[in-house]
Amino acid sequence: MDLQAYLKEKAERINLALDKFLPDGEIMPPNLHQAMRYSVMAGGKRIRPVLMMAACEAAGGDAEAVVPAACAMEMIHTYSLIHDDLPAMDNDDFRRGRPTCHKEYGEALAILAGDALLTEAFVLLASPETACHLPHGALRRIIHIVARHAGSFGMVGGQAVDIESEGQDVDAPTLHYIHTHKTGALILASVQAGALAGGADETVFGHLTRYGEAVGLAFQIADDILDVVGDEKLLGKKVGVDEARGKATYPALFGLPEARRRATELRDMALAALAPLPAGADPLRQIARYIVDRTS
Amino acid sequence: MDLQAYLKEKAERINLALDKFLPDGEIMPPNLHQAMRYSVMAGGKRIRPVLMMAACEAAGGDAEAVVPAACAMEMIHTYSLIHDDLPAMDNDDFRRGRPTCHKEYGEALAILAGDALLTEAFVLLASPETACHLPHGALRRIIHIVARHAGSFGMVGGQAVDIESEGQDVDAPTLHYIHTHKTGALILASVQAGALAGGADETVFGHLTRYGEAVGLAFQIADDILDVVGDEKLLGKKVGVDEARGKATYPALFGLPEARRRATELRDMALAALAPLPAGADPLRQIARYIVDRTS
Repeated sequence: MDLQAYLKEKAERINLALDKFLPDGEIMPPNLHQAMRYSVMAGGKRIRPVLMMAACEAAGGDAEAVVPAACAMEMIHTYSLIHDDLPAMDNDDFRRGRPTCHKEYGEALAILAGDALLTEAFVLLASPETACHLPHGALRRIIHIVARHAGSFGMVGGQAVDIESEGQDVDAPTLHYIHTHKTGALILASVQAGALAGGADETVFGHLTRYGEAVGLAFQIADDILDVVGDEKLLGKKVGVDEARGKATYPALFGLPEARRRATELRDMALAALAPLPAGADPLRQIARYIVDRTS
Repeated sequence: MDLQAYLKEKAERINLALDKFLPDGEIMPPNLHQAMRYSVMAGGKRIRPVLMMAACEAAGGDAEAVVPAACAMEMIHTYSLIHDDLPAMDNDDFRRGRPTCHKEYGEALAILAGDALLTEAFVLLASPETACHLPHGALRRIIHIVARHAGSFGMVGGQAVDIESEGQDVDAPTLHYIHTHKTGALILASVQAGALAGGADETVFGHLTRYGEAVGLAFQIADDILDVVGDEKLLGKKVGVDEARGKATYPALFGLPEARRRATELRDMALAALAPLPAGADPLRQIARYIVDRTS
C-alpha cells in the first residue's frame, strides 16, 4: 500500500466532513463560528482522525462509519491548541504559519471558540447520524472513552502538569506522565474509538489499545526529536522551541540517541501488538513506522 | 409542599453526589483537581440540577435516576463561571464571597480547570452508572441536548454575543438572544434532560420544553432586576454591576416596570405550560414562582 496516498485520501475526507459539520461562519454568532472554522480549517495532518479510521478498518469495520467521531476528535485537538496558545499558557502568536486564534480574534473569543469546539465535539458524537452507523452499544463507550482521555485524567491533566513543570527539573516519571497524557491520551482514544466503531471484540480491542498506547508516546518523542534535529522548512514551524521554553523533553532528559532508541522500541511494540491482526491493519502498521521515521 | 425544604433537600443530594463524582484533590494532577473542586464546591443554589430532578419527577420518573446528569449540568455551569471570570472576559476577582478560580490558582490552571469540568461532565453523562438508570434511548438524546445547549448555539454563543455587546447600544432582539442563550439554554436543557430521564412522551416533552424556555428567560430577567433593586446582603454579591459594566439588561433597555411585567408574564407562561401535568409537576410550578419572586 501507498501510505502517503492513504494519508492524503483520509485527510481530504476528514476536511470535507469538518467543513460540513462545523457551523457556517454566517450563522449567529458569526465571529464565534468564524473563529472556530479559522482554527480547525488551518490544516494539519489530521493524524488522530486518520488513526481512528485506520483502527476501524483494522477491526473489520468501514472507515466511513467513524467519520463524524473522527471529526469530533479533530475538534477536541484543535480546541486544545487554541487554549494552549493563549497568553496565560504557551503564549504563541503563530501556528501553522498564521496568527493564532487569539491574535486573530482576541483572547475572549479564542477562549470561547475553544470551549465551543470542545462542546461541539460532543454534539457531533451524540448526534443521530453518528449513532446510526455504529454497532449497538458502541456509542456510549466511545463518548466515555473520548471524554475520559480528553479531560483531567488525560489531555488536560497532561497540559496542567506540563505548564506547572516549565523551567523546572523534571524527572523521568513526570515526563512520562506529561507525554502519555498531553499527547498520548487523544491518540489512544482515537484508536480505541475506531476499534469500537469497527466492532472489535475485547481481544482485538486489547491489541489495538496496546498499539495506541505505544504509538501515542512514540508520536510525542518523535516530536521532541524533531524539535532538536528537524528542518524548519519541512516542519513548517520553528525548531529549538522546547529548549528555549525550558520544556521537558526526551532528548533533553535522556539525550538524543536514547530518545531515538525509545521511539524505535515503541514503534516495534506497536507493530508487535498488531501481529495477531489481518491485513486490514496494514495502514496502522505503516502509520506506526511513519510516526517514528517522519521528518515533518 | 414546602419549596424551601424541597430546594434544600435536592441541593444537598447534589452536593453529596458532586463530592463523589469530582476527582479527589489528591489525585494527579492535584492542583488541577483542587481547582475544579474549589469552584464547584463553592456553593450556589444548584438551580439547574434541581430543575432537572423536578422535571424528571414531573414526567413521572424517580429524581434519583437523574442525579449524575444533574451533576454534569452543574459542572458545565461552573466551568462557564470560571471562564467568564477570566481577565480576558469579565475579569472578576470574587465570586460567592471568595477569590475566583484564576485569582486562587492562576490563569492557566483556571482555563484548564474549566476545560476539565466541561469534559468531565461528558465523562459522567456517558458513564455506565448514568446510562443504567435511564429509559432506553434517552442517554444519547440527553447528551445531544446538553451539548447543543452548552455550545455555540447555546450558552457559549450567548456569552460571545454578550462580550461583543459590552458598552454597545444593544437592541431588543440582541438582548433576547443573549438572555435566552447565555442563561436560558442550560436551564432549558436541564428541564429537557430531566423530562427524557423521567420517560416523558413527546407531548409531555413539549409541555416541559415550553416551561423550560419561559423559566430560563424569566430567571435572567429576574437576575437583571435584582442587580438593580436587590439587597447586597441577601444576594451575597454586589449590585449595580451590570450598569457599571455597560451590560445589556431588561431594566436598562425597557425600564424596571416593564422588566417586572415581562418576568411575571413568563412565570405565567411557564405555569400554563404545566397545566396538563399532574401533581408531580408541583415542584416545577413552585420553582417558576420562586424564580420570579425571589430576593436572592
